[in-house]
Amino acid sequence: MNNYEYCVPTDIRFGKGQVECLSKEIGKIGKKVLLVYGGGSIKKTGLYDKIYEVLKDYEIHELSGIEPNPRLASVKKGAELCKKYGIDVVLAVGGGSSIDASKHIACSAFYDGDPWDLVLDKTKVTKALPIFTVLTICATGSEMNPGAVISNEETKEKLEINHPFLYPTLSVCDPTYMYSLPKMQTAAGTADIVSHIFEQYFQPNDGAFITDRLSEAALKTCFKYGPIAINDPQNYEARSNLMWTSSIALNHLFTFGKGGAWSVHPIEHELSAFYDITHGVGLAILTPAWMRYVLSADTVKRFAMYARNVWDVQKEDDYEAAKTGIDLTEQFFIDMGLPGTLSEIGLDDSQFELMAAEAVRTSGLSTRSYVKLSAEDVVQIYKNCL
Amino acid sequence: MNNYEYCVPTDIRFGKGQVECLSKEIGKIGKKVLLVYGGGSIKKTGLYDKIYEVLKDYEIHELSGIEPNPRLASVKKGAELCKKYGIDVVLAVGGGSSIDASKHIACSAFYDGDPWDLVLDKTKVTKALPIFTVLTICATGSEMNPGAVISNEETKEKLEINHPFLYPTLSVCDPTYMYSLPKMQTAAGTADIVSHIFEQYFQPNDGAFITDRLSEAALKTCFKYGPIAINDPQNYEARSNLMWTSSIALNHLFTFGKGGAWSVHPIEHELSAFYDITHGVGLAILTPAWMRYVLSADTVKRFAMYARNVWDVQKEDDYEAAKTGIDLTEQFFIDMGLPGTLSEIGLDDSQFELMAAEAVRTSGLSTRSYVKLSAEDVVQIYKNCL
Repeated sequence: MNNYEYCVPTDIRFGKGQVECLSKEIGKIGKKVLLVYGGGSIKKTGLYDKIYEVLKDYEIHELSGIEPNPRLASVKKGAELCKKYGIDVVLAVGGGSSIDASKHIACSAFYDGDPWDLVLDKTKVTKALPIFTVLTICATGSEMNPGAVISNEETKEKLEINHPFLYPTLSVCDPTYMYSLPKMQTAAGTADIVSHIFEQYFQPNDGAFITDRLSEAALKTCFKYGPIAINDPQNYEARSNLMWTSSIALNHLFTFGKGGAWSVHPIEHELSAFYDITHGVGLAILTPAWMRYVLSADTVKRFAMYARNVWDVQKEDDYEAAKTGIDLTEQFFIDMGLPGTLSEIGLDDSQFELMAAEAVRTSGLSTRSYVKLSAEDVVQIYKNCL
Repeated sequence: MNNYEYCVPTDIRFGKGQVECLSKEIGKIGKKVLLVYGGGSIKKTGLYDKIYEVLKDYEIHELSGIEPNPRLASVKKGAELCKKYGIDVVLAVGGGSSIDASKHIACSAFYDGDPWDLVLDKTKVTKALPIFTVLTICATGSEMNPGAVISNEETKEKLEINHPFLYPTLSVCDPTYMYSLPKMQTAAGTADIVSHIFEQYFQPNDGAFITDRLSEAALKTCFKYGPIAINDPQNYEARSNLMWTSSIALNHLFTFGKGGAWSVHPIEHELSAFYDITHGVGLAILTPAWMRYVLSADTVKRFAMYARNVWDVQKEDDYEAAKTGIDLTEQFFIDMGLPGTLSEIGLDDSQFELMAAEAVRTSGLSTRSYVKLSAEDVVQIYKNCL
């Protein structure tokens, strides 16, 4: 088990009706709130009005229109609003995009240069406004971790900023807010959760037994409840299990005592950066292809362990077990209604070399991932997804 | 899944050599340290000298001799030292006893009356000194939670104080500090961890699937590594897996979305309060007896689930599976060298009525536990352990 530092100070308020706590909890800090959200869905569901009702004694400024892959331009706008109005608290209402944008805004509020500088050099992060979140789609785990992924539309880069100051102070996780999610968003969100767990499970592991078993528990939960949430959107048990699983799937619990770079996320990030496709859709297409590509004598034991412990595959031969586990993983994504190939979503091979080069350049793919991959390997994985 | 509030701000520094961080981290707060520890074991192992080396620039005052079941008298002494010397940080070096005493000291330092008042009425806790811990035996999870159990030698009460101010600020968890533990302490500590997980697993569960699966992951870890740590005390993999499992076993992760009172702990607390026996030993004796006593048509499904998911019991009949799981649990404790009956540790039935009445009076046993138990039930469980 590797040495590890673990500190997750976010205060999680989980369950129906928890939004009411915001008045009291934000009140401990200040009165001026920057409300950050995406499109009009929170207006349709009534959550927008509810926020105003709960925070009726507060001065609320708004930044709306946060993109599904949040852009630097939005962060710049938000940081300016914080400076202009002397904002006390950034309140993200939405999914990972609104929360990620809010995190970048929260630290950019104390920085005088281009906010992108903070992404490129986190030592420039010296302070951040307290971040509160109200989660409406579970996927990224951003509500309980210190990371944010931001797209720079000019440089076509999509990079992460990660700093202890960016843990949300408090996150309201009310599963009923997901009742109105379209099937495709539930499916893509679940694919994202599953991928987060895979990224940590498929890493070198020097004896972190407990961590692997916890990860398998979370994978089983996704495989059980993803389809239920899609077919029965108001199933509280399914929504709540997925929501909490998504939070702990990316708050370091499943990488405790392990380490290494992620594999599929950097490969997917280029798809989102170049084509603006939904992150979870890209992950669902790429994951089985990556698994098949890296399956070898070196990795077969872990893939077989996954198949047996998570899918209850009974085959004795490791390769047979591993392959069955991968097939079941692919079928799970397809059964949730996600596309199985890049062709299905209209992509061709014209950008593969460029994307692969970027994926390798901006990540630990070739140096620290579970199976080290070159740009050529990544091109081949893209091709295998056509 | 029940509504739940979850916030665990403790900074965990896990792994070999992490003690070095104390100088820098305590330095952020102050210079005057109250070092709280038990007997001479940390002097024998060299940890005592190491602490002085790491904190060579600090003013250290000492409170030694903390009892295995920490007593109010020690807390009073510690609180006086804090007031007298203007202590900035309470540093516990040891297991749950030293840490629990330190927590009670940390809040009593700001209270002018009898520290026992804070146990009886936690609204009197208004502030606490920052608590740092260096863990030398894993069992209670106190290094990552806000609870402390203190014995009042005058009233023969053993009660918990639990307050958000009592989360340790930082805990050093170095598995190598457990290399020198006697077999019996490793066994009793492991029994305590297992019991903590059981107390949360055997609670009413309205659909908290993820929580039950995480608990099973932790139980598997204890059952795998407990015997290894006993037979091969310097096995880092075993020590590290047990150490981290013990921390997360009692930081609310395994009760997330659930709720209810504990069952076996209050029954055992009276054994420790009346006879000063080792907590984990009492738990190991009582747990299988409690399981058999509460096994019924209402509970058999959960016991069978436990047997199948944790012990891989294949029996189709629920009762058969459940009974096999209970037998395996009992055998696990015995295989670790723990006594199987109260007679073995020299107890008779002379205090059973008194202890049972106290157990029921001071806990939620008869009102909110998995299977509600009267004093008569508890007497019968004690008798079944003779």
